[in-house]
Amino acid sequence: MKINDYIQLVDKKLDEFMPIQYPEDIFKAMKYTVTLPGKRLRPVMCLEACRVLGGNIEDAVPTACAIEMLHAQTLIHDDLPCMDNDDFRRGKPTNHKVFGEANAVLAGDALLSFAPQVIVKNSKKLGSDKLIKILEEYFQAAGAYGVIAGQVVDIESEASKPQNPAETLDYIHTHKTADLFKLSLRTGAIIADATAEQIDAITEFAQTLGVAFQIADDILDEISTFEEMGKTLGKDKNAGKLTYTSLYGLEESKCKLACLLEECYGIMKKFNTESEVFDEIISGIKKRVGI
Amino acid sequence: MKINDYIQLVDKKLDEFMPIQYPEDIFKAMKYTVTLPGKRLRPVMCLEACRVLGGNIEDAVPTACAIEMLHAQTLIHDDLPCMDNDDFRRGKPTNHKVFGEANAVLAGDALLSFAPQVIVKNSKKLGSDKLIKILEEYFQAAGAYGVIAGQVVDIESEASKPQNPAETLDYIHTHKTADLFKLSLRTGAIIADATAEQIDAITEFAQTLGVAFQIADDILDEISTFEEMGKTLGKDKNAGKLTYTSLYGLEESKCKLACLLEECYGIMKKFNTESEVFDEIISGIKKRVGI
Repeated sequence: MKINDYIQLVDKKLDEFMPIQYPEDIFKAMKYTVTLPGKRLRPVMCLEACRVLGGNIEDAVPTACAIEMLHAQTLIHDDLPCMDNDDFRRGKPTNHKVFGEANAVLAGDALLSFAPQVIVKNSKKLGSDKLIKILEEYFQAAGAYGVIAGQVVDIESEASKPQNPAETLDYIHTHKTADLFKLSLRTGAIIADATAEQIDAITEFAQTLGVAFQIADDILDEISTFEEMGKTLGKDKNAGKLTYTSLYGLEESKCKLACLLEECYGIMKKFNTESEVFDEIISGIKKRVGI
Repeated sequence: MKINDYIQLVDKKLDEFMPIQYPEDIFKAMKYTVTLPGKRLRPVMCLEACRVLGGNIEDAVPTACAIEMLHAQTLIHDDLPCMDNDDFRRGKPTNHKVFGEANAVLAGDALLSFAPQVIVKNSKKLGSDKLIKILEEYFQAAGAYGVIAGQVVDIESEASKPQNPAETLDYIHTHKTADLFKLSLRTGAIIADATAEQIDAITEFAQTLGVAFQIADDILDEISTFEEMGKTLGKDKNAGKLTYTSLYGLEESKCKLACLLEECYGIMKKFNTESEVFDEIISGIKKRVGI
């Protein structure tokens, strides 16, 4: 399957998995951010990891969609006035701008339970042992050991300059971004009954690609436009936020990014299967930042 | 075991399950509200349901503690400025007053994944099939079908008077309060390998006791003091909020409460085991509201 086939499949299933039920306000708020048009990078990676390692894509669809729901949850809460206070996301008003702050908090909360519920309800055939493994990955990535650890340290580093900014920035990138990449790729691998070595390789790929992706995001925050990105840009720089470009400058950031993406190609050789989709993800990042 | 033995056990295990790790701010914020002194009603009910239905209390401890964590999560987010905007909880400043709004949002988010993680990590001996059943109960109660449904309709009923206030109030009480009682008692029963009839009986008990508990809370909001309750009172009445007492008056609310508690005694006979703990919970409610 090509990347666009995956995106179409994910979009169709996200719509199916999220019927609007009573009380409608909460289900509408949940679905609003989840179904904003996007690249569906995390679910696509989950499905492709499953395929590359010999699994059946269909088996990974509920997990892939649940990860997109979790990703939307982090966006909804990160955009809140008490966090990054963003008005736009993917070119549309943010969740709290449309549904109010209380509903945005609750929609995020609800997604944190709804997403794993979608996995359990729709993946019974994987068996309980595998389901528990997938859920363990989910809880680890979604909670205080994962994305939230990254977000907390990010907020702290804004309030007071960290003693070791390079190490702190690595920590933030690893948890805020790479942990969801790891969740996507590792669960795809688990569903495909991958070996321990294959899971190690896919984890290394996820970590490297995740950090690269975040560096690209930092670069784009400087060089892109609202129209291209669908969100307000330059805020990080103006807020004196710790970013790759603020720490290393634009040119060195681009070099580091190119280097990490080369590493990704190297790791991919361990999969013993060609992946047009991973190739396309990497070349897409290169193209966007112009390297 | 007596009710105080259960409380001591739960408090000890909550402390053990929640070591302060890096990044400390988030783990401290999570632990702060979870470990505020309280009656530990939900975990106590989980443990007692397990005992009454022939299970081993030890097996239910991680689940019981996880439910207290989930309960704390709902308190942290309900107290936020964009929700009920409360400054005190159990006689102490609310989470966002101590840790700031961003950390309070993130601490609540983190608990939603941390709680089920505690169950999975510490209940492996129950086996994956039973773990999945427990997690399904957890997701159902924690999400948009459970407490969040209650909270959303509660907020809506404040903004505009519902067409059918009696029905709406039942809906709010059932989801905001009884759903966590159901989670506590049903998971205790599942861990004890209860029969389908026993689970039906404990679910009926949970629904009846949960609604009774919320009616008592509405009554206490009118007749109690800050010192007794540890939170600001009369806010619901002043905000014109839909409550049992605002809808039916104080006397009829007390009658309804007495009636529901009698029903609880009736349902308890189906368990075929005496329960001093459930007796004490019911008589405790009676004593507090003076019926």
